[in-house]
Amino acid sequence: MEFSEHIKTANVEDVVLRERQRPPSRGTLCVTGHHLLFSDREEDSSRQLLLLLRNIDAIEKSVENLSGYSGFFSKAGHGERMSGSSGTITIKCKDMRVIQFDIPGMEQCLNIAHSIEHKKWRLSSVNRDYSVCPSYPPAVIVPSSIGDDVLIKAAKFRQGGRFPVLCYYHRKNGMVIVRSSQPLTGANRKRCSEDELLLQAVIEGSDKGYIIDMRSSQQAQQAWMTGGGFESKSCYERWKRLHRHMERGKVLQESLIKLVEACSDESHNMDRWLSKLENSKWLSHVQTALSTAGLLAECVERDGHSALVHGYEGTDCSLLISTLAQLIVDPSCRSLEGFLALLEREWLQGGHPFQQRCAHSAFSHARLQQESPVFLLLLDSVWQLWRQFPLALGFSEVLLLRLATEAYASDYGTFLCNNDQERCAAGVKDRTHCLFQSLLKPTERDYYSNPLYEPTELAIWPSVHPQSLQLWKGFFLRWTEQARLLEEVQEEIRNMVIKWGKLALS
Amino acid sequence: MEFSEHIKTANVEDVVLRERQRPPSRGTLCVTGHHLLFSDREEDSSRQLLLLLRNIDAIEKSVENLSGYSGFFSKAGHGERMSGSSGTITIKCKDMRVIQFDIPGMEQCLNIAHSIEHKKWRLSSVNRDYSVCPSYPPAVIVPSSIGDDVLIKAAKFRQGGRFPVLCYYHRKNGMVIVRSSQPLTGANRKRCSEDELLLQAVIEGSDKGYIIDMRSSQQAQQAWMTGGGFESKSCYERWKRLHRHMERGKVLQESLIKLVEACSDESHNMDRWLSKLENSKWLSHVQTALSTAGLLAECVERDGHSALVHGYEGTDCSLLISTLAQLIVDPSCRSLEGFLALLEREWLQGGHPFQQRCAHSAFSHARLQQESPVFLLLLDSVWQLWRQFPLALGFSEVLLLRLATEAYASDYGTFLCNNDQERCAAGVKDRTHCLFQSLLKPTERDYYSNPLYEPTELAIWPSVHPQSLQLWKGFFLRWTEQARLLEEVQEEIRNMVIKWGKLALS
Repeated sequence: MEFSEHIKTANVEDVVLRERQRPPSRGTLCVTGHHLLFSDREEDSSRQLLLLLRNIDAIEKSVENLSGYSGFFSKAGHGERMSGSSGTITIKCKDMRVIQFDIPGMEQCLNIAHSIEHKKWRLSSVNRDYSVCPSYPPAVIVPSSIGDDVLIKAAKFRQGGRFPVLCYYHRKNGMVIVRSSQPLTGANRKRCSEDELLLQAVIEGSDKGYIIDMRSSQQAQQAWMTGGGFESKSCYERWKRLHRHMERGKVLQESLIKLVEACSDESHNMDRWLSKLENSKWLSHVQTALSTAGLLAECVERDGHSALVHGYEGTDCSLLISTLAQLIVDPSCRSLEGFLALLEREWLQGGHPFQQRCAHSAFSHARLQQESPVFLLLLDSVWQLWRQFPLALGFSEVLLLRLATEAYASDYGTFLCNNDQERCAAGVKDRTHCLFQSLLKPTERDYYSNPLYEPTELAIWPSVHPQSLQLWKGFFLRWTEQARLLEEVQEEIRNMVIKWGKLALS
Repeated sequence: MEFSEHIKTANVEDVVLRERQRPPSRGTLCVTGHHLLFSDREEDSSRQLLLLLRNIDAIEKSVENLSGYSGFFSKAGHGERMSGSSGTITIKCKDMRVIQFDIPGMEQCLNIAHSIEHKKWRLSSVNRDYSVCPSYPPAVIVPSSIGDDVLIKAAKFRQGGRFPVLCYYHRKNGMVIVRSSQPLTGANRKRCSEDELLLQAVIEGSDKGYIIDMRSSQQAQQAWMTGGGFESKSCYERWKRLHRHMERGKVLQESLIKLVEACSDESHNMDRWLSKLENSKWLSHVQTALSTAGLLAECVERDGHSALVHGYEGTDCSLLISTLAQLIVDPSCRSLEGFLALLEREWLQGGHPFQQRCAHSAFSHARLQQESPVFLLLLDSVWQLWRQFPLALGFSEVLLLRLATEAYASDYGTFLCNNDQERCAAGVKDRTHCLFQSLLKPTERDYYSNPLYEPTELAIWPSVHPQSLQLWKGFFLRWTEQARLLEEVQEEIRNMVIKWGKLALS
């Protein structure tokens, strides 16, 4: 149900906007096809709120009597106009903001409430019409010794057709990171010689490769029952399998919900806060993401071997881990452009189903189906890297915050649909603007750059000690007084550094 | 038992120094009367360690056989020289650092281990010979209408003679903060007209004053049994009593021990870390300190009334709360000089028993008597303020770290003894250097200043939401890899800001 389809009252006067840590303000609420617009009446300190309807995660309505009219509402009929009563709509946004409107008059309130619901490698165009793998882009990089006919057969042996493709080539030693989905061995332990050939070609000239399977070995075996499976030692003898269980899907979604609930706990109880933070397990997921990515990076950089990474579908944790590993080992991914290009390759071309995963975030009462904050987990993990290596990354925390917001609700087409095929069919590129291009505009890029950036050629190995990781306050507590204060201060420091930097250079 | 009294072996060659996150280094260990000195043999990357003996909180020794000599030690006699075995001494410092020496040869190992002023107010010199209150300085500020004879009698009615004295005068509205110890009412509900007169004089011209009692009302009543008590409504009718329970003494000490134990947990278990952090309750104590100080500051600044603060002895939490409240309301306390002067007034002149409280920190196996990290709790609370208002305080985190180290073990005389009387008797001022003076030297002060300092005349109200407070990693995790890394980065940022600032001004 689209919000805009149910607009009965487009304009309501005399609405009071309440938001945490700000004085209430009185003005006019207007609902358009895409936005909810509030503007107050004050002449000297005018305030406007423009909220994208897609940013709304949940709406709660309640009708309260004004003090002095106690008990009035319970006796009044549903359709009756009660001038003494006021309704309240609480809007909870996907980016964790919570706003509240006190709306005068029952009817209006109900109406508004209804209104709201290289050499060894080659570029293959085997997937030019998306028929081999619907979630892959038209062009993929594969070993040059492997023909398209082999790819087509190997794709049939991988869930969703996601056959192993190159996602990172390590210039230093020629090793690579390859990703895929699970092999469809099933209970009969099927084999696929083309898949074996393809993986063999990946480690051609090396003694072995590592498979990082993001399931426990028990889970990987249980996958036989549903047609999935893993690369057995006997069929892929030169590959060494490492199992690193990572949570995904609903578990991750519930973790986010618990964390956000903890963050909005207004009680002043320190024990309760720390206990809720622990129970949410969010930081454990961040820790697992960083340590698994660290393992992958170690395989390639320190151990000097190529690696294949997959779990089940290959559209979530595989992308998370390969992205983080690239940030760890490859300096070119750490500039503003490099990071956005990495996201473009791994998440957009790589086929992360943004529409399904980011339909709701933490507040929605909708029955969750495919929602899962994998991309948010990526951004949080990148933030931890950024915090641990404040000079090594070319972008600022503001960029991560912006991306977190845009993934859930956006004016741009970048995060629309679930894969390249869908975006192509919908004409997204022709009909919408690209977020990444906009972020790189000369007027914008200063804002999203890290003024302290000093590129290093070294790998940046994150510490994954529990004591080294911390809550991403900038995101999870962004709508609190504290966060706003810190934001202002950071902005001031940024401006100072930039100003002085320019003066020093001039 | 002094470490230096037991030195049998002053110099040991071929000792291996091990410290977390650093490669081991081999060199010579030397123990002097005050220091433990290690210097390695490497010519190109020479490393020296100079450790003040007073900084040592605990020493653990263990004798391990080298691999290949398994079982040798158990058969060997105590005095026998075992060239194959090596002993290990683990030194745990008061500032949380842990270092380890592998020492060749049993005997050496055992030997080393053995070795190891205003119109309404006047200055009174009633306490010039410390006879009225041993823990007060010779000069105190009291209401000008109160004679020394009244003070002498009031002092007899307060524990340890700590009669109410002025510690802060709020220029904006003439209101004050006064502190004392508990009144000695006892089970017979004794009264003291001089004490009543004195407190009456404090709020002369105002309708009321607040007493912030840092005990629960139950605790305050139980104090009757041991001769203590509180200011009853009937005897002090214009004073409104507010009870805010704060932990102190052993409870605080145990909290620190638990926290430090949690911080040194090397397991990679996120849940365990968060659970231990919660169980230590340290952050709850920080929260209580800041919220009680906030209440005191509100009484004076927002409510416009004077306040008396005390718990039991008036030498611990009273100082903590009055110090924090002054930082909150008074900009002049927030400069580097202002803050050190505040510490001088409240903690040194104010009679915090540093020698008793800071004899050991978190590692010692000694039976704890009077140890309690009240001053560390102050520094942590100031750090939280500093983090929430990064431009408002004129000093840097490095200053807080330095003070935390010096309070436990120092080359200076500043934190010696328990009060001014003791320091005077020991001739501390003549025989030692003053830490605060040294920190203010032109060569040093840059290092301890906040390069981003922009003084504000406004009160700085800290947020005490659990989500707003965080572990003081700079102190509690200072000896980990992460902390070192962050320190280096902060140092680099500092240098950049200073350099640019100078260029911009030139």
